[in-house]
Amino acid sequence: MTTSDERCQLAFSLAGTEHEVLLLSNLEDVRWCSGFTGSNGWLVISRDSTTLLTDGRYMEQARSQVPNHVDVVECRTAEVMAETLGRVAPSGTIAVQEGDLTVSAWRRIATAVGRRLASASAELANLRRAKTAEEIATVRRAARIADDALASCLELLRPGVSERAVRDVLEARMRELGADGPSYDTIVASGPINSARPHHRPTERVFQSGDSVVIDVGALIDGYHSDMTRTFFVGDPIAELLDWYRTLLEAQATALDLVAPGRAVRDIDAACRAVLARDGLEEWFTHGLGHGVGLLIHENPFLNGTSRADLRPGDVVTIEPGLYRGGFGGMRIEDLILVTDSSHENLTSSPKDPTCPR
Amino acid sequence: MTTSDERCQLAFSLAGTEHEVLLLSNLEDVRWCSGFTGSNGWLVISRDSTTLLTDGRYMEQARSQVPNHVDVVECRTAEVMAETLGRVAPSGTIAVQEGDLTVSAWRRIATAVGRRLASASAELANLRRAKTAEEIATVRRAARIADDALASCLELLRPGVSERAVRDVLEARMRELGADGPSYDTIVASGPINSARPHHRPTERVFQSGDSVVIDVGALIDGYHSDMTRTFFVGDPIAELLDWYRTLLEAQATALDLVAPGRAVRDIDAACRAVLARDGLEEWFTHGLGHGVGLLIHENPFLNGTSRADLRPGDVVTIEPGLYRGGFGGMRIEDLILVTDSSHENLTSSPKDPTCPR
Repeated sequence: MTTSDERCQLAFSLAGTEHEVLLLSNLEDVRWCSGFTGSNGWLVISRDSTTLLTDGRYMEQARSQVPNHVDVVECRTAEVMAETLGRVAPSGTIAVQEGDLTVSAWRRIATAVGRRLASASAELANLRRAKTAEEIATVRRAARIADDALASCLELLRPGVSERAVRDVLEARMRELGADGPSYDTIVASGPINSARPHHRPTERVFQSGDSVVIDVGALIDGYHSDMTRTFFVGDPIAELLDWYRTLLEAQATALDLVAPGRAVRDIDAACRAVLARDGLEEWFTHGLGHGVGLLIHENPFLNGTSRADLRPGDVVTIEPGLYRGGFGGMRIEDLILVTDSSHENLTSSPKDPTCPR
Repeated sequence: MTTSDERCQLAFSLAGTEHEVLLLSNLEDVRWCSGFTGSNGWLVISRDSTTLLTDGRYMEQARSQVPNHVDVVECRTAEVMAETLGRVAPSGTIAVQEGDLTVSAWRRIATAVGRRLASASAELANLRRAKTAEEIATVRRAARIADDALASCLELLRPGVSERAVRDVLEARMRELGADGPSYDTIVASGPINSARPHHRPTERVFQSGDSVVIDVGALIDGYHSDMTRTFFVGDPIAELLDWYRTLLEAQATALDLVAPGRAVRDIDAACRAVLARDGLEEWFTHGLGHGVGLLIHENPFLNGTSRADLRPGDVVTIEPGLYRGGFGGMRIEDLILVTDSSHENLTSSPKDPTCPR
């Protein structure tokens, strides 16, 4: 499945063929189906036609980005959108993405078209999960760039260097290596307080001997993200931090071993938490085990204890257990994993030795 | 109005005092009211109490960021949210931000609380408009950094240098000057095709003599954005591009002159377009005149021909007319403007001479 036309028809069928037309509002879905990368775009997809609605800022760009089968219509108001919807689907139901559309937009559109909007099937949220060979190649390249950038700045992990300094070097290095930029706000989190915050933003704090330093970094290429985390100890950490790290590493390895098509994500999550629980650390793992990665940094499937999803071939997911105790410190180990037809492949190749160069 | 408690009560009253509780979901509003900067946060605000709901990743950070009057509750599900809402507001109406909440979230919450959700008053969308002295100081500093960064890379505007090279230098320079990063994806758009795309992403294209080069750049400091655009001509542009530029500059000056408290934004938009129309160029101005800037790069008030908004003291807005003709070229001139008690102040100080150093 590679052409834009096939992708549009896949979206249409996943939304539920009982609907006459699908209004695709999620921008990554719009990009994946049509190639359009602007910040305002809607696809109106029926069995016979696809129309891109965007505003004047993007008309020129849209015409050059979308293939021939996609019509482009300038649209600033719900009324213009309703005209297109009415032309394409004079009577049947209009399926929308309720997980993406705001209540306001939904009301405006429903009023303008004068019909109730139907919810697209939940299966539509899996539209972009099965990555193509080309998508995998791009993510693989992005993962490699993050690995190489991290390797090149290990020498900065010494007392006196700031979180921001490491962030700046990492991001500059990724661009030099061919990334369009960072995949998300790079995290460099150090010491007993900052490293215990999973989503810490880098500050001017400088590393001190004994710190754990959590580095969460990814590269962006052509809209595709990579994502990985490594934890390092500057100087000599207390023994308890090293104990935590050993357990965390084992918990991550246990989860990785289970990644395969057909596996229930909650079973992987449970196996990982069981290792932490064995050593009395489960309470410090305060987030989900991982998430899908692609045109969005966080996308389906989400890996946690409440999800009912199974892994599928072509999924690209993170496996990222972490431990965080405010005032003591934190750590996370995260790999980016491709689910293959029979097992999985680890796209992250950075070593997991937390010792810093001296 | 500066304390968190006052900001929460302002939000509550703007939402409409007929409601018993306000569920604030917009992340910038949550940050502005509570100081919490995580990516998952909801504020439950009543006349007597404020509660922040967030997930396990952010509990430690939340407790350290919010002031004493805000309770912090760990929340991953609509059921936990419903418990808090039910405790704070056992019976009355729950106001939500329909312009921010997805239909899915709205349904989940309504089901969990077992009550209809009410729409907060539209006036709530103006919550963050009147910038405080401290906010203005931060935006001013961000604007100055973008000015200085741009000035330091003018020498790169010569044939053979790529769009991406200029972008990389601009963004690195802003960080050196104290920015947390770029305020948005920096735009460097050159030549007859790329410069005619208002939201072009920088490519490897190298400048050629005769190109117009549009540079749209801002700095981010403590969550606050700056935003400005300048257009330059590399080498010798054709006369028609220079004619366009003169008209555009006059159109922008006309709009700037009108910026004052109480002025209807559509009148400013109309005056700007009238100058372009006089020279037959109106059709090439394909976007709105500007937008508010603060914790979001695009926020209220939006300046265009259909808005019914008036400017207010403390608004920080862009004035950014542009002209774009695919295959010919494009240009934009954008300043960041503070609306003062009696008039306005231009926070952007970069010169508007489009000539490049030789």
